[in-house]
Amino acid sequence: MKHYIYADNAATTPLDKEAFEEMKPYLLEHYGNASQPYSFSRKGKKALQKARGIIAQCIGAEPEEIYFTSGGSESNNWAIKGLAIPFGKSKKIVTSQIEHHSVLNTCQFLQNIGYTVDYLPVNPCGVLLSDTLEKSVVNSSVVSVMLANNEIGTIQEIKDLVYIAHQQGIYFHTDAVQALGHIKVNVKDLGVDMLSASAHKFNAPKGTGFLYIKKGTPIIPLINGGLQENGMRAGTENIASVVAMAVALQNNCCDIEKNKEKLLVLENTLLNILDDNKIDYIRNGSNKHIPGNVSISIGGESGEKLLHRLDLMGICISTGSACDSRNTQISHVLKSIGLSEHYARGTIRISFGKHNTIDEAIKIGHSIVKILSSAVKMNMSTL
Amino acid sequence: MKHYIYADNAATTPLDKEAFEEMKPYLLEHYGNASQPYSFSRKGKKALQKARGIIAQCIGAEPEEIYFTSGGSESNNWAIKGLAIPFGKSKKIVTSQIEHHSVLNTCQFLQNIGYTVDYLPVNPCGVLLSDTLEKSVVNSSVVSVMLANNEIGTIQEIKDLVYIAHQQGIYFHTDAVQALGHIKVNVKDLGVDMLSASAHKFNAPKGTGFLYIKKGTPIIPLINGGLQENGMRAGTENIASVVAMAVALQNNCCDIEKNKEKLLVLENTLLNILDDNKIDYIRNGSNKHIPGNVSISIGGESGEKLLHRLDLMGICISTGSACDSRNTQISHVLKSIGLSEHYARGTIRISFGKHNTIDEAIKIGHSIVKILSSAVKMNMSTL
Repeated sequence: MKHYIYADNAATTPLDKEAFEEMKPYLLEHYGNASQPYSFSRKGKKALQKARGIIAQCIGAEPEEIYFTSGGSESNNWAIKGLAIPFGKSKKIVTSQIEHHSVLNTCQFLQNIGYTVDYLPVNPCGVLLSDTLEKSVVNSSVVSVMLANNEIGTIQEIKDLVYIAHQQGIYFHTDAVQALGHIKVNVKDLGVDMLSASAHKFNAPKGTGFLYIKKGTPIIPLINGGLQENGMRAGTENIASVVAMAVALQNNCCDIEKNKEKLLVLENTLLNILDDNKIDYIRNGSNKHIPGNVSISIGGESGEKLLHRLDLMGICISTGSACDSRNTQISHVLKSIGLSEHYARGTIRISFGKHNTIDEAIKIGHSIVKILSSAVKMNMSTL
Repeated sequence: MKHYIYADNAATTPLDKEAFEEMKPYLLEHYGNASQPYSFSRKGKKALQKARGIIAQCIGAEPEEIYFTSGGSESNNWAIKGLAIPFGKSKKIVTSQIEHHSVLNTCQFLQNIGYTVDYLPVNPCGVLLSDTLEKSVVNSSVVSVMLANNEIGTIQEIKDLVYIAHQQGIYFHTDAVQALGHIKVNVKDLGVDMLSASAHKFNAPKGTGFLYIKKGTPIIPLINGGLQENGMRAGTENIASVVAMAVALQNNCCDIEKNKEKLLVLENTLLNILDDNKIDYIRNGSNKHIPGNVSISIGGESGEKLLHRLDLMGICISTGSACDSRNTQISHVLKSIGLSEHYARGTIRISFGKHNTIDEAIKIGHSIVKILSSAVKMNMSTL
């Protein structure tokens, strides 16, 4: 197999080896349906219970507040539709302009069937200011604002935003897909009523995730059916993946400080190389950002071209979010932070993960410089 | 590990070993996000494409008519909500009284928000008669009738029912969760517009499935977000599980006739033992049933007690469906086929799978007889 430098950890992450070993017996041996009462299903049922406990502990919740889903998109759809629909069309939904498409398109769906949605602007660092929310929040059913942005890594002041919503008695959902396992997340501290997570963003398998729902939140199911997940999310439990999710999350949460420190070194290593070579770039996002996320916009360049050139060199990075990769337009996030087209078109996202090394960061930095300088040379030679 | 006789294959099935081997590299090595354009993601993207092709071929569909989901419950929710909502509340939904809870509770949800639903009765064999549908179908948006029942195994005459719906220009969805991989399923032959499937019912992993949607069917997404699944089902693709699903389905479909023959022998072996021992039972369902499904109602007995006694002997069977196992009431299916309480309370479902042996069928038969005769003796001794 060709050797790749994988630096697109905001799109997905390699599976934690220990998580794989832990999930394997639930694929191969203890395959009983967790909803069945016989003893053959007991191991699976206990494993689910244990996983729920571990995950709850990682985010400061109670086990019965964790509802397993098929991933972040389902969790986001559920949180917003499940809360907005019972409140009816007279109450609006409030969100930001830089949310993930699973939030934005959920809101769009609700608009199509008669709901009102406020899409709030952010500042040039991608921060939703408290004042902006305060002006809009009255008469809403739910506010949905992401904890960290997938393109530019900006972390929101969720606690402050929750305070504003709760003052008006309005429920608050946060999409923590990019944050969980990468920064400390405590639902009690944040005060949120709902929080979405996706397993494969923290070294667990694809196709699983969860929604935290604070006790007493009047949400209805998105997927109706059997009594699984306390009657709130139907479907035979995906025990193996849930077990892996708990192991991977716990491992990441234990190492959050250590990983953060390492990732900041990788970020700086890369950026120093760009600086030393006088690359004309803007770093997007705020100072408070997801460790390892480096979104840079290079003046007069094409992010797409850079991605493909780096790919030829065996380096995996992104132009924006994975979900938007088939769309070559300037992303809604870059538009919202007011980036000029000159820079926006030259945007790439390098997202380091805990497995990346300094050597890899150096290689990526030098490769970007090499591509850019060969482009300059080519342009010069045509003069 | 204790040795179990697993005869609850309608609840879930053991994972196909070849499917596991095929999925493993997509968990461990080729973990790239399939939506990303770099070459590291190419293997995953190709694997998804191949799996889509295999699955389409197994059911006589086009690859672009297969939409991956998290399983049967999601597929059923999507099919009904996704079609009913665009048609609006003026059009009713038609279904049967013996559907899976993921269909019934989806309909219930739609009723709660103002939709009308007709729940059609079935005959004592669990068959929905064409006449019954014909009387009800006018002015509907969608008809949803399962291909085979999960409790009693009855296979519906879907082709005839589809004909009636289509004559009125009404879309038809079938829940084929219990059928796929166990009987021949061809969507073109059946004529259905949508068909739901769940991977773990045919020896693939839990947490994955698909919805077949015939080209041109005006359905909207249940899970909004990214551009995955042609913009119809958001969420990072669960490549590993989808690959396993395709392998397992193909293996099952290749062996359908062989497995059917074997399963009928197992059914008869079990029933002959009950007959030889003059057990007072009714076999539920129609002659046209899912191979291996044996739903029997024993007069004056308790299905729950039987399940637990068999469990102590290392035998896994069910009282009804897995989704209903926490509910000790007589199931909606048994009520709908008009079974008297005397028999209904003594219902157990033995569902053989391709891995079961004749020896296991004999053991189950004798164990049931043993439990019942010791109960008789106990009753006698108290006289």
